[in-house]
Amino acid sequence: MRNIKLSIQYDGTRYDGWQKQGNTNKTIQGKIEAVLSQMLNEHIEINGSGRTDSGVHAYNQIANFKTKSNIAFEELIKKANTNLPNDIVIRFAEEVDEVFHSQHDAKGKKYLYRIWNSEFNNPFLDSYCIHLSEKLDINAMKSASQYLIGEHDFSSFTTLKSNKKSKVRTIYSIDFSVNNEIIEIIFYGNGFLYNMVRIICGTLLDVGLGKINPNFVNEILSKKDRSLAGYTAPAKALFLYDVEY
Amino acid sequence: MRNIKLSIQYDGTRYDGWQKQGNTNKTIQGKIEAVLSQMLNEHIEINGSGRTDSGVHAYNQIANFKTKSNIAFEELIKKANTNLPNDIVIRFAEEVDEVFHSQHDAKGKKYLYRIWNSEFNNPFLDSYCIHLSEKLDINAMKSASQYLIGEHDFSSFTTLKSNKKSKVRTIYSIDFSVNNEIIEIIFYGNGFLYNMVRIICGTLLDVGLGKINPNFVNEILSKKDRSLAGYTAPAKALFLYDVEY
Repeated sequence: MRNIKLSIQYDGTRYDGWQKQGNTNKTIQGKIEAVLSQMLNEHIEINGSGRTDSGVHAYNQIANFKTKSNIAFEELIKKANTNLPNDIVIRFAEEVDEVFHSQHDAKGKKYLYRIWNSEFNNPFLDSYCIHLSEKLDINAMKSASQYLIGEHDFSSFTTLKSNKKSKVRTIYSIDFSVNNEIIEIIFYGNGFLYNMVRIICGTLLDVGLGKINPNFVNEILSKKDRSLAGYTAPAKALFLYDVEY
Repeated sequence: MRNIKLSIQYDGTRYDGWQKQGNTNKTIQGKIEAVLSQMLNEHIEINGSGRTDSGVHAYNQIANFKTKSNIAFEELIKKANTNLPNDIVIRFAEEVDEVFHSQHDAKGKKYLYRIWNSEFNNPFLDSYCIHLSEKLDINAMKSASQYLIGEHDFSSFTTLKSNKKSKVRTIYSIDFSVNNEIIEIIFYGNGFLYNMVRIICGTLLDVGLGKINPNFVNEILSKKDRSLAGYTAPAKALFLYDVEY
């Protein structure tokens, strides 16, 4: 059996998230498995580096699957992309060691959150940005974000239904880039809890709007209480940006 | 009666074009008229600077309407945008002379066509670009486009169902900008026939792919024969960019 690693890009707008579930065929994993199984005439199951929620996008999701097929990578990619809908694209494939597992071996992840900070909504960015017409205080957001860098228990920044045992994660960096009216925030860490990036974003946006004092983010973190943090910012502005191994 | 001029931006993906027709309420004109009529409690009809086809977008469509209302512009815009779907945005409103008519008074128009020229499709640009994986010869496209500048009979570049009497139009400029894998072409002229920009684009794309010799575009133009020109390039990559008065 060959173990094949894929690099996948998708627009999550139309999907119920990455992970196959129940009898919906509106998941990204489900779509890719169906196409590969048909193409290779074999039951294919793919492991993603992690789930993405309904509506979340990916610049570079990593997945792997086992196959008996000896199809060439170029042909695999070309055929798969022809059969996949336009909003899911496989950009790279390579053979990896048989023990490689996209989820278990992930050492770091980057997520991107995009904000359109302008008086009017931008119809062409509406599927990929949250729109806020009030000018955000980026410096306040930057200083609040500093409290989150490093190894912390992020219990305040995950939903209660998260069933991961340890809530301790390490955030290596939170970088802001401002390009006219588009603000991009890149979160880089060793892993993220369920809804963690979206709740951190909701909190930072409240800081940027003056509703939460930047220093208070330190207190939110230390109290380990979800109710103190901001709202869960919308999925449509979130991108799984990269996965490190 | 006040005569109010609007600047409108829209993502045409979900719509059957600008122009109200039959009993579909899936036109941009129809949506805006419904919202304004309800808001102002008055039957509102708007004149657009021109139709855009099903799936075509607008950075800056201009329209005007007559109203008895003395609503302030700020309130008008705010209320309208709150009631319009996210993919239609009114960005500006002003009172104009009672004889102003968005269509009849238009002196020039700009259209933008966007190409994603890269090996793989980009899921995030798929609604706003045509994807071509083969590298386009931009210089050939530029030299072909030079034949189209100036006053010409553009019969070769319009669909037969076009019922405009004169097929003579003036193109002032065709500008190319290349930004990594995104190619943008801006067409500026005194007016464009039905499907004219899309047929010119289809022709220029065939030139860029080496299927049509750049010099042959001059012959296509002079023969006044639609069957010689290229295909009608897809609507989703076309934007009404600006209207001049």
